[in-house]
Amino acid sequence: MSRTILIIGIGAGNPEHITVQAINALNRADVLLVPTKGEEKAFLADMRRDICERYLTNPDTRIYNYAVPTRRNDGSYENGVHDWHHAIAKIYEDVILETSGDNDTIGLLVWGDPMLYDSTLRIVEHVRANGRIAFDLEVIPGITSIQALCASRRIALNRIGLPVEITTGRRLSEGWPEGTDDVVVMLDGVEAFRSVQDPDAEIHWGAYLGTELEITVSGRLGEVAEEISEIRKRARQENGWIMDTYLIRRTRKVGTEDGT
Amino acid sequence: MSRTILIIGIGAGNPEHITVQAINALNRADVLLVPTKGEEKAFLADMRRDICERYLTNPDTRIYNYAVPTRRNDGSYENGVHDWHHAIAKIYEDVILETSGDNDTIGLLVWGDPMLYDSTLRIVEHVRANGRIAFDLEVIPGITSIQALCASRRIALNRIGLPVEITTGRRLSEGWPEGTDDVVVMLDGVEAFRSVQDPDAEIHWGAYLGTELEITVSGRLGEVAEEISEIRKRARQENGWIMDTYLIRRTRKVGTEDGT
Repeated sequence: MSRTILIIGIGAGNPEHITVQAINALNRADVLLVPTKGEEKAFLADMRRDICERYLTNPDTRIYNYAVPTRRNDGSYENGVHDWHHAIAKIYEDVILETSGDNDTIGLLVWGDPMLYDSTLRIVEHVRANGRIAFDLEVIPGITSIQALCASRRIALNRIGLPVEITTGRRLSEGWPEGTDDVVVMLDGVEAFRSVQDPDAEIHWGAYLGTELEITVSGRLGEVAEEISEIRKRARQENGWIMDTYLIRRTRKVGTEDGT
Repeated sequence: MSRTILIIGIGAGNPEHITVQAINALNRADVLLVPTKGEEKAFLADMRRDICERYLTNPDTRIYNYAVPTRRNDGSYENGVHDWHHAIAKIYEDVILETSGDNDTIGLLVWGDPMLYDSTLRIVEHVRANGRIAFDLEVIPGITSIQALCASRRIALNRIGLPVEITTGRRLSEGWPEGTDDVVVMLDGVEAFRSVQDPDAEIHWGAYLGTELEITVSGRLGEVAEEISEIRKRARQENGWIMDTYLIRRTRKVGTEDGT
């Protein structure tokens, strides 16, 4: 006897991003755990509710909302993250034991894809390591904000045969990554695009991708960086939160030896 | 009056990877164009047919199969690719003009996501540049083989706060990319993982991801590289084709200055 935990990617914000696999997973669950945290979560919680209303047809599936703590910001980034993951793992344990039986299936809904800059997989592995709950684990992929951005701008992520680096705003703000001219940034709290010293670089920027609030801007970095920064500030003020993603293609410097 | 072209990502091979947005797009199309090429395409064509049978409910949508040339292999990689794209753009034009009217919606089915190592977007832009056909363009994202790999192995793509580079086997075979310890490889015809000189690196490898033929192997590179190579050769021989994707996490060398 063991529980099954389903980590279900539900896409970047457009309810139609959901896959058939994810819909089936929602409906296999005895209980769906929905975390609530921070000010941005009212809008996100509404979208999650919308997804459940559209696609959940199993009358026996229960939805359980629970609060999670926000991340501690003192100390090193990684220590803070590790402590936070352990704290959430304890909450998961309590909630899972409280809401489900030994043989039940528990669904965890994740924005985007569980593989990319998301902590759910790591937290669930802490739960496993703690040893209080035995479970099988399944992961269901979902459309990420990177994919929503490229689809909305109708662009390819990579140039022909060239690499792309996925990184964070914090890292990009420390300097352009070596070895690639194409960088996609998630989790940018610092407007790292403003630190890129290449006005001829091409930027494709999007916020609230996939949702009705979606905003996108594309152009020469030197021309649109200020505009993006202003739009970003205004949108954050209006909505109380922002999530954005962008691709920057630098003037090509890497790997030209075998190109044309 | 203008046509609408929908470039529809249909996922990495599992028919349940398809999104609701993609299903709706299939059913909006007056004609779906299905390319046939090369020996691997019998299996892929069957999967595409399966997807259409499962999800296409609009009785007016026509499916049109057409042959595309294989890529020229002489000369530089990029010149070959560019010529090939222009050749296919001509075929697209002829097929679109032959199968659709001025106001029709044309769906192009793409494995994975149109943004990632796929030429459809570029070919369609050649069609636009040629000026014979006016059209609006929409892109619908789909689950990539990278996502299918991570879901199947139940792993995150990135380590906490760290970057990931997406690259090709050809590039990795020229040396480990600077600036990152986590590399995901698509389009590897050269078994580039064998050139990585780090037996302690961790590899997660998958072939035919999402399909009933799926094979995955995870482990220390030094222990499993030969095994993967043998499995790969045998599977290619048995099936007549192979498509594989893998993630290699090198022993961490980059960015340790701000980690723990």
